[in-house]
Amino acid sequence: MMRRLDWNQLDEQNRAAALRRAPATVDPQIRRQVSAMIDTVRAGGDTALREATRRLDGIELTSIYLTKNDLAAAASRLPAGTRSAMDAAYATIQRFHAATTPAGQEIETSPGVTCSVRYVGIDTVGLYVPGGQTPLPSTALMLGVPAQLAGCRQRVLCSPPAADGRVDPAIAYAAELCEIFSVCLIGGAQAIAAMAFGTDSVPRCDKIFGPGSVWVTEAKRQVAALDQAVTIDMPAGPSEVMVIADAMASPEFVASDLLAQAEHGPDSQSILVTDNSALAEAVGNYIYKQITQLSRQENIRSSLKHSAAIVVADLNQAVEVSNRYAPEHLIIQTENANELAAGITAAGSVFLGQWTPEVLGDYCSGTNHVLPTSGYARSVNGLSVADFMKRITMQRATASGLQQLATTAAALAEWEGLTAHRWAITTRQKALEQLTR
Amino acid sequence: MMRRLDWNQLDEQNRAAALRRAPATVDPQIRRQVSAMIDTVRAGGDTALREATRRLDGIELTSIYLTKNDLAAAASRLPAGTRSAMDAAYATIQRFHAATTPAGQEIETSPGVTCSVRYVGIDTVGLYVPGGQTPLPSTALMLGVPAQLAGCRQRVLCSPPAADGRVDPAIAYAAELCEIFSVCLIGGAQAIAAMAFGTDSVPRCDKIFGPGSVWVTEAKRQVAALDQAVTIDMPAGPSEVMVIADAMASPEFVASDLLAQAEHGPDSQSILVTDNSALAEAVGNYIYKQITQLSRQENIRSSLKHSAAIVVADLNQAVEVSNRYAPEHLIIQTENANELAAGITAAGSVFLGQWTPEVLGDYCSGTNHVLPTSGYARSVNGLSVADFMKRITMQRATASGLQQLATTAAALAEWEGLTAHRWAITTRQKALEQLTR
Repeated sequence: MMRRLDWNQLDEQNRAAALRRAPATVDPQIRRQVSAMIDTVRAGGDTALREATRRLDGIELTSIYLTKNDLAAAASRLPAGTRSAMDAAYATIQRFHAATTPAGQEIETSPGVTCSVRYVGIDTVGLYVPGGQTPLPSTALMLGVPAQLAGCRQRVLCSPPAADGRVDPAIAYAAELCEIFSVCLIGGAQAIAAMAFGTDSVPRCDKIFGPGSVWVTEAKRQVAALDQAVTIDMPAGPSEVMVIADAMASPEFVASDLLAQAEHGPDSQSILVTDNSALAEAVGNYIYKQITQLSRQENIRSSLKHSAAIVVADLNQAVEVSNRYAPEHLIIQTENANELAAGITAAGSVFLGQWTPEVLGDYCSGTNHVLPTSGYARSVNGLSVADFMKRITMQRATASGLQQLATTAAALAEWEGLTAHRWAITTRQKALEQLTR
Repeated sequence: MMRRLDWNQLDEQNRAAALRRAPATVDPQIRRQVSAMIDTVRAGGDTALREATRRLDGIELTSIYLTKNDLAAAASRLPAGTRSAMDAAYATIQRFHAATTPAGQEIETSPGVTCSVRYVGIDTVGLYVPGGQTPLPSTALMLGVPAQLAGCRQRVLCSPPAADGRVDPAIAYAAELCEIFSVCLIGGAQAIAAMAFGTDSVPRCDKIFGPGSVWVTEAKRQVAALDQAVTIDMPAGPSEVMVIADAMASPEFVASDLLAQAEHGPDSQSILVTDNSALAEAVGNYIYKQITQLSRQENIRSSLKHSAAIVVADLNQAVEVSNRYAPEHLIIQTENANELAAGITAAGSVFLGQWTPEVLGDYCSGTNHVLPTSGYARSVNGLSVADFMKRITMQRATASGLQQLATTAAALAEWEGLTAHRWAITTRQKALEQLTR
């Protein structure tokens, strides 16, 4: 069901093939549909949103925008068990994100020259919470908590209506917890377009966050390329996990982690890297045994086709393979997990030891689950509070502070042939000479 | 020469017009030329780079890649005064960036669950240093210093050859200071393509940084959109400054700051916002008087056409106008500059008081001069060491740590209809029950 490969038997071409992701190229027809949807929403506003929701979701919206009462009513439908789970998840996510919120600084870089960094929440942020197959209130928390901590003045949440045309109770509750007061029942490319341009119901957003379908991702890419100064969190592709495991790992745990990833979608990728071929075989058997018990077998079967179990010579080679792949999620189930983790140079989030399933990070370990996929972990971070803020630098020089650096600035302006730059310095030097005369 | 506008006499449409930037839409012909160049370099490697340099720069390169000896020889041609200026600038930039380098953290988010953040330098970074009209060694420092502090293993610098076919001595010296050992004499879209795909001389880069011409900027946009997991620092547009000044400001200083910005290019924008119309007039006179003394008059005259002096009712309104514009550079030359700065919510870098010309930040106050333009300061940061690093989150749960959060994770997996996610938890719960039995 899952390919088994011996890394040291593979030539370079086959190694590349073993780690290849599903191609991220978007069907040209989807590009055109998304582009047309963006134009339609830009021109038609709320009317276009209603029409798109009627046509694509089969739902006639009474109101796009949910009032506080609507949200409270929806949240009250949430069963007590799920509500406490949301509370517990909110608490750990809040704790981790609060502790890692960046703080301002002030540094004297040269006598009389004080430079500082100040962090300010982005004014209006758009949080996209996918609906599609099922509601994802965990994503609402992963976007809503850092936006709340960043102090973004206006937090907008868009998510498609459930099949009954209403908002999912857990998403409504997440909005309450994160004090999100602009919740709009819109999904897909139309939601992204609405947040990029604004409509009567949906505020125009400075930055748009969140995962989504291929339509959502393509719409985010397209609005970010427009001349609107709207930005997005990160490029997104199908979800993926790599598991490094040794002979000490439980094959059942490893199988469960690979399957949890595979159920996300038909393009998800789960790769096991192990120095123990007996483990690879045992994991394969558990997958085979367990799969029939699960609800999303089509996703899983399709996903496992581009997944693999790779046998390496030793665990150092496993780390090399992982750094080359740069996984969104990396699970290390080995005896010396912490030691191996020190060698990891590219991964979204790392899960250490047998009692830290990746699913814990999806919901409630506290770290963010919006992470770079498709190899972007080589240069892109998972979400944090900093992504919901702007970092403004400031500087102030005293007269003598300027005097001390004036020769430096003037010499460099001269070398760069910028005479007006030089004048901005010399006009002040002259004034200071007159002052001190 | 510079429009003078009264903000409170303008209707909404004219206010928008007063703050409009030069349109950022790229000529379709440039898009096609850049796309063709990317394909050519991808297919032709070094041969294509030589051919492009011959055709576009009129230079026959003996070697694309400069050896350590080449760099040392070039740096030795640098006059002593410029060399000490480079040393002084390096020192302040290094001090500021070192002090603001992010540090790892560890947080216990729930009993037995430890989450951490680790920062790792991006493996291979590409630093583009524009040449064009004149060499910009200051940009080499602004990219090289944070890359060095981040510990990026491989730092690649591309810059076009000077008219004599050689590397600029100050850029060579900057490379030495920042320990950049891969310096390539390539400019324009061809340099960006080379860093995105790699050639025999130019290493393939994970992330590409730096400002540049419209060709460079468009090339960065295009390579970032390809399915290569190559990223770029930020979208870039023409440089811009806003100056907030009151009656206490020196009109000569203000004029020099506006002109310094204007000389960057014909699309640069300089906007004065003041509560004092006499100051606006005096500044206009100084500009008129000074301009003939300067070397880049064509840039300045063209730039001043889309610049303006805006008269506001009071300084609070000036802050409002500034936050709406979201300038790359903001200079505040008022009596209460620090107080006004507290109200600034969107700007790249802020310069406070009359002795802090923006030019100081271009060279040596210590802050980075690669900043968001075109209104992107609403959601994008200027460069810092963090941009040259990846932020990896890690987590480890003990058996009891997992037990405490298991109900939460399982309840949310259930709500989201993800049975394989749920199994990753329950299989471990069962194992723990057996262990404790």
